[in-house]
Amino acid sequence: MMRGVSLVEVAPRDGFQPVVPFIPTGEKIRIVQALYAAGLRRIEVTSFVGSAVPQLADAREVLAAALALPGLDAQVLVPNQKHTERALAAGARHVAFFLSASETHNLNNVRRTPGESVGDYAKIAAMLPQGISFRLNIATAFDCPFGGAVAPKVVLDLLAQLVALEPNVEIALCDTTGRAVPGNVAALFQAAMASFPQVPGWAFHGHDTYGMGAANAFAAWSAGVEVIDASAAGLGGCPFAPGATGNVATEDLVWMFEGMNVATGVDLPLLLEAGREVAALPGAQTGGRVREALRVTKI
Amino acid sequence: MMRGVSLVEVAPRDGFQPVVPFIPTGEKIRIVQALYAAGLRRIEVTSFVGSAVPQLADAREVLAAALALPGLDAQVLVPNQKHTERALAAGARHVAFFLSASETHNLNNVRRTPGESVGDYAKIAAMLPQGISFRLNIATAFDCPFGGAVAPKVVLDLLAQLVALEPNVEIALCDTTGRAVPGNVAALFQAAMASFPQVPGWAFHGHDTYGMGAANAFAAWSAGVEVIDASAAGLGGCPFAPGATGNVATEDLVWMFEGMNVATGVDLPLLLEAGREVAALPGAQTGGRVREALRVTKI
Repeated sequence: MMRGVSLVEVAPRDGFQPVVPFIPTGEKIRIVQALYAAGLRRIEVTSFVGSAVPQLADAREVLAAALALPGLDAQVLVPNQKHTERALAAGARHVAFFLSASETHNLNNVRRTPGESVGDYAKIAAMLPQGISFRLNIATAFDCPFGGAVAPKVVLDLLAQLVALEPNVEIALCDTTGRAVPGNVAALFQAAMASFPQVPGWAFHGHDTYGMGAANAFAAWSAGVEVIDASAAGLGGCPFAPGATGNVATEDLVWMFEGMNVATGVDLPLLLEAGREVAALPGAQTGGRVREALRVTKI
Repeated sequence: MMRGVSLVEVAPRDGFQPVVPFIPTGEKIRIVQALYAAGLRRIEVTSFVGSAVPQLADAREVLAAALALPGLDAQVLVPNQKHTERALAAGARHVAFFLSASETHNLNNVRRTPGESVGDYAKIAAMLPQGISFRLNIATAFDCPFGGAVAPKVVLDLLAQLVALEPNVEIALCDTTGRAVPGNVAALFQAAMASFPQVPGWAFHGHDTYGMGAANAFAAWSAGVEVIDASAAGLGGCPFAPGATGNVATEDLVWMFEGMNVATGVDLPLLLEAGREVAALPGAQTGGRVREALRVTKI
C-alpha cells in the first residue's frame, strides 16, 4: 500500500483539557517537544477558549513554544470569532473551529444552536487572512451522548450548509462518544466525499471508549481518509460527553499503520517515551494497548 | 449490509485454559449455559489434551453438559489422534485440530514439527466418522512469539499441503500474539480464499493484546470471513505465547457487528451477564472495553 497517513496529535488539547490539576506550562511545552521529537509534525497544541477550560489558560505561551519548532503544523482550537482573534494575535497559523451535529450537544458544549454555529463558521472563515489554514470539526457526527445515534442525513445536511458557505476547509468527522462502529464510519465518509468533492481534505477523530478506536481509524483510512487524530497514551475525554474516555492512542495507530507499511513518520520508541511523560501527569486518564504490550514483550 | 457473522465463543477453552486455580466443573457448565442463554450457538467448550492443560481435565463432563443444550454446536479442541479418539468417545460432534505455521511455536506448543503435525492432520481427517464436523486452526498465522512476523508465503505453502490432504474443513487463521494488523489480516484471507476456493469456510481467531482485536475482526469480515472467534469478557491468553493477553472480547464484537446491522444472534445484556460471571472467576485476566463503557453509560 503506497498511501500514507497523517496523524494529528491531540494530547496537548483534547488530552490535557479534562486533566485536573493544572499542568504546569513548562511541562506542557516539554510534552509538545517530546511529541515533535518522535516525528509528529501536526499537533493540536492548545485551544483558545477562555475561561471555559481553565487547564488551557496558558494557550499563548504553549503556542509560542510550539511555533518555535521548525516544520511543526501547530493547530489550535477556537470556538468563536473573539477567540479566533486572540489565536491569530498570538501567532496561530492553523485554527480549527468546531460545532456539533447534535443540537443538544452543541447547546451543552458551546451554548449555541447548530444554526448559530453555522453562522459563526462563516464569520470565522471570512476573517481569516490569506495563508492561515482552517479546519472544521463536526462533533457527534455519529452519536451524541444525550441523544444516541445521529443519522447520516443530519450530518450531510449540515455539511451542505457549511460547504456552501466556505468549501476550502479540511473537515473532520468526530466520533465524540466512541460509539461509532467501523462499517458506519466508512459509509459516512464515503457519502460525504461523494457529496462534497470540492472539500480539499477529510479527517477522522475517534475515541476508544468502546474498543473501536483502531477499527474506526482503519475503516476511515480504508475509505480514503488520510488525516487521523490520536492522543499519546490514549489521554483524553470530553467534559461535556458523559462516559467518553480517552482518544484512540497514537501509539496504537502508529503500530497499526506501520505494521501495514503505511508510513506515519513517527518513531515508535520515541513516541512511547513521550507517552510515558503524558501518562505520568497527575490526574491523567490513559488508554490504548500498545504501551503495555510492548512493556511486557520484547520485539 | 445483509451478510451476518457467526461468533464462536472460546472463553470455556482458550479463556479458561490459562486460569489458575481450577474452575469447578459446575461453574464451567454454568458459564457455558449462560453463554448459550445469551444466544451463542457455537462454543468451543473444552479441549481434550490430557495432562498438558490441568484446567481442562474435566473435558468429558463439560462436553456432556454442552451436548444437552438444544442446537448448540459444541466444538472441542484436539491435539492428536489419541485425544481425538477420547473426544469422539465422549460424544464430540465437532473437533478442531491445531498446528502452528511457525516451527518454533509448534515445537513449543505440541512438541511436533509442522511437518509432523501435517501428518497428524491427515490421520485425524481420515479417522473422523461421517457427520463429525472438522475445523483446522493455523496458529501463529501472522506472527510468532518467538520469531516475529510470519510471511504469508509460509502460511500459504502450509495450507497447500493441508488442503491437498483434506480440503473439506473450515480453516481458521489465528493471530496468536495479537500482533497482526488489519490490512495484513484482510490480505492474507484474500490470498488464501483465492488460492484455495475448494475450502468450504474460513474463520479468524484474534487477540486484543495490541488493541487490534476489533480492527482485525472487522478486516477479516470485510474480506469475506463469516466465522470469528471471541471470548466473553476478553478472557484468554496462551501459556506458550509470552505476552499474549486476552482474546478479543465477544461483547466488543457483538457491539461492533450489531452496530453495523450485521446480525450476531447474541443478546448483549445477557452476554454481559455471562461476562460478569466469567470476570468474577478467581485468577481471570479480562479485557475488552464494552463491558466497562456500558457499566458507566446508560443507553
